[in-house]
Amino acid sequence: MKIISNPDYSQQQELLERPQQERANVETAVTDIIQLVKENGDQALFAFAEKFDKAKLGTLRVTEKEIEQASTLVSPELKVAIQTAYQNIYKFHEACYTQDYPVIETMPGMTCWRKSLPIQKVGLYIPGGSAPLFSTVLMLAIPAKIAGNKRVVLCSPTDANGNINPAVLYTASICGITEIYKAGGAQAIAAMTYGTESIPAVDKIFGPGNAFVTRAKELAQQQGVAIDMPAGPSEVLVIADQKANPVFVAADLLAQAEHGPDSQVILLTDSITLAEAVNEQLRIQLSTLSRKQIAEKAIENSKTIVLESIEECVKWSDAYAPEHLIINTENAGDVADQIQVAGSIFIGSYTCESLGDYASGTNHTLPTYGYARNYSGVSVDSFVNKVTYQKATSQGLKNLGPAVEIMATAEGLDAHKNAVSVRLKEIENYN
Amino acid sequence: MKIISNPDYSQQQELLERPQQERANVETAVTDIIQLVKENGDQALFAFAEKFDKAKLGTLRVTEKEIEQASTLVSPELKVAIQTAYQNIYKFHEACYTQDYPVIETMPGMTCWRKSLPIQKVGLYIPGGSAPLFSTVLMLAIPAKIAGNKRVVLCSPTDANGNINPAVLYTASICGITEIYKAGGAQAIAAMTYGTESIPAVDKIFGPGNAFVTRAKELAQQQGVAIDMPAGPSEVLVIADQKANPVFVAADLLAQAEHGPDSQVILLTDSITLAEAVNEQLRIQLSTLSRKQIAEKAIENSKTIVLESIEECVKWSDAYAPEHLIINTENAGDVADQIQVAGSIFIGSYTCESLGDYASGTNHTLPTYGYARNYSGVSVDSFVNKVTYQKATSQGLKNLGPAVEIMATAEGLDAHKNAVSVRLKEIENYN
Repeated sequence: MKIISNPDYSQQQELLERPQQERANVETAVTDIIQLVKENGDQALFAFAEKFDKAKLGTLRVTEKEIEQASTLVSPELKVAIQTAYQNIYKFHEACYTQDYPVIETMPGMTCWRKSLPIQKVGLYIPGGSAPLFSTVLMLAIPAKIAGNKRVVLCSPTDANGNINPAVLYTASICGITEIYKAGGAQAIAAMTYGTESIPAVDKIFGPGNAFVTRAKELAQQQGVAIDMPAGPSEVLVIADQKANPVFVAADLLAQAEHGPDSQVILLTDSITLAEAVNEQLRIQLSTLSRKQIAEKAIENSKTIVLESIEECVKWSDAYAPEHLIINTENAGDVADQIQVAGSIFIGSYTCESLGDYASGTNHTLPTYGYARNYSGVSVDSFVNKVTYQKATSQGLKNLGPAVEIMATAEGLDAHKNAVSVRLKEIENYN
Repeated sequence: MKIISNPDYSQQQELLERPQQERANVETAVTDIIQLVKENGDQALFAFAEKFDKAKLGTLRVTEKEIEQASTLVSPELKVAIQTAYQNIYKFHEACYTQDYPVIETMPGMTCWRKSLPIQKVGLYIPGGSAPLFSTVLMLAIPAKIAGNKRVVLCSPTDANGNINPAVLYTASICGITEIYKAGGAQAIAAMTYGTESIPAVDKIFGPGNAFVTRAKELAQQQGVAIDMPAGPSEVLVIADQKANPVFVAADLLAQAEHGPDSQVILLTDSITLAEAVNEQLRIQLSTLSRKQIAEKAIENSKTIVLESIEECVKWSDAYAPEHLIINTENAGDVADQIQVAGSIFIGSYTCESLGDYASGTNHTLPTYGYARNYSGVSVDSFVNKVTYQKATSQGLKNLGPAVEIMATAEGLDAHKNAVSVRLKEIENYN
């Protein structure tokens, strides 16, 4: 990994720039797919399943029997591991969720409160392909379960035999999801946007995907469907000092690098010795990985920046706004407290990102590509709307009404004033 | 207002359809404006101020002296009213905000927590024009103050003399905002998106505006800047029964109708007698309004739907997903509890929407045009990012690591597993 030593501040922006995302050729393909799903509904989905997944599907909805069978295909150890993750994720997400906020009497007789109401219909997209992302099912289905959405729909592509990955089905079933459809890619997003004979249109779509899925979600958003957050390639930034174990640091960088050739990993350190030791470890560990070629490519685009101090590393990290931030330094907790911008933070030598990716309890659906500046990771909040309520008694209206009359008049909005005045008048007459 | 009695369910979608929004001619104009601001910075803003606001500006930033002078131009009664509103809004928003969530030990040695961190730079847009929206300053600047954003920028257009409305400046100043710029319309949004010599680029843009501002915000979002929510014309839905006072109901409908000719108001009731009495009141009250012509036009596009029962009204209201919902019935609180979809709910005879628009304590920046299905109104949450943290001790890693190894292997992600394995190995060697 390229080492840059003590760069000038003026180079910061250039050094921290993310690789440009390629979007060519996606646009037309996605627009065509959406149009076909909108026009032909289920028939278009059958045709796309045959074209893209080589699968001849009889029906789109996964049957109860298929879900039961899937369970028999998941190993007992994996089931226990998934259940452990489920419990941790449930516990943490439930603790971070507020359903009923305190009732506040802002003035005598004027009471306001706020409640979280579940979004009526949500759609979860789980990609297929090389890595069956059952972990993403946990990260989306658990908050949906806590939120209590009336209808939760899951779409995922099948293999050539028309089966969705059994671990995906098993995980969905333990999260209480029963409405699962065989549909992948942009066509699945289109189905959840416009609805088909089988698949309902939903209010909000969640989940990762390739460039086609990402573009389809953007277009869904323009149709009034909400989405979890804008997407980009995954990334990690590690802050490490001379006491950090280079074996751990290299392993963490590679765990991110294996996601895809466009993944970005950045190491910030105050120690050139560590930087070099990490490079040595990268060479050693890379050779053993099954996804070596992918990781190698990602590492090529990545860099180590050596800075004067850990405080400087914090500043550079904030400027980068990393999705994942691993702090592998002395007093890592204090360093974490200084961070202002990140998606999720992993503190200390033993807290590798993989823990959070799967099972620590936090969510792995996080803002990447700089979006940690202005978006939050997925939580139960993502599955609810916060609705406000207010109730005035006659006394409340007497206390607050005159102020509202003055302000409405000053904004030139007579009828706003009048809605108060007719009520105050009635109260007066009544008394 | 047109009365539709006991329509069939099959007509629901058509009856509740919102008027199409016109977008013609905006696209090119906005793209050109953005391009000019991007290229010419402040100079473009000066030119647009002259073109659109007929103002020759010397500098863009409002001076401390201008803010002080503005204060002398606001009447003492209006100041007191604004301060009352400030206190209520502050109190309620603070009570609904959680900065530090509980620290959860999901497994022995595995600790997770979440914090709200303020977005670094936010921009507030306050329109000028016929109604000086100082109330919107309160609704955006108070949550920003509670969130503690490092930099809060406010843009608003001036009159022909180069002055921003004094009530807007006064309100901004009591909210602690000192960085105020004379810029309006799409050009202000472009400035906060790309930055100019005077105005910084921000991470998130808030605030209402006309079709040009709305489109500029959409384009800003495509550049990676977050926005508060998608925009649409304001709307109210009133559920009222035979005991409701038709004078109040008509006043509430008109308060919404005066916003603009494209505002929509809907009355749902189980009483044809009330529907007719409200129509009579609309005629009487309309004649006295200063914004009569606007309100008349909006009322033309609006309708009363008479349904069998208040429970039916609740179902129709949920299908409409109103921005503002006024419940003017017996046991209005119970009716409110049945509602699943709305932006903000006003309960009972004395709780007119104007109270919430100005001063009850809730926020008036709400999802409209059906977005109440999948977006929440502005709150302090809108001004922060929720960041998750996790820390594993060696014991925590021993407890959770093996499950993560199994899951990473099942997803085919070796390097993810390896990040755990190298650590577990070291712990073993050490013991």
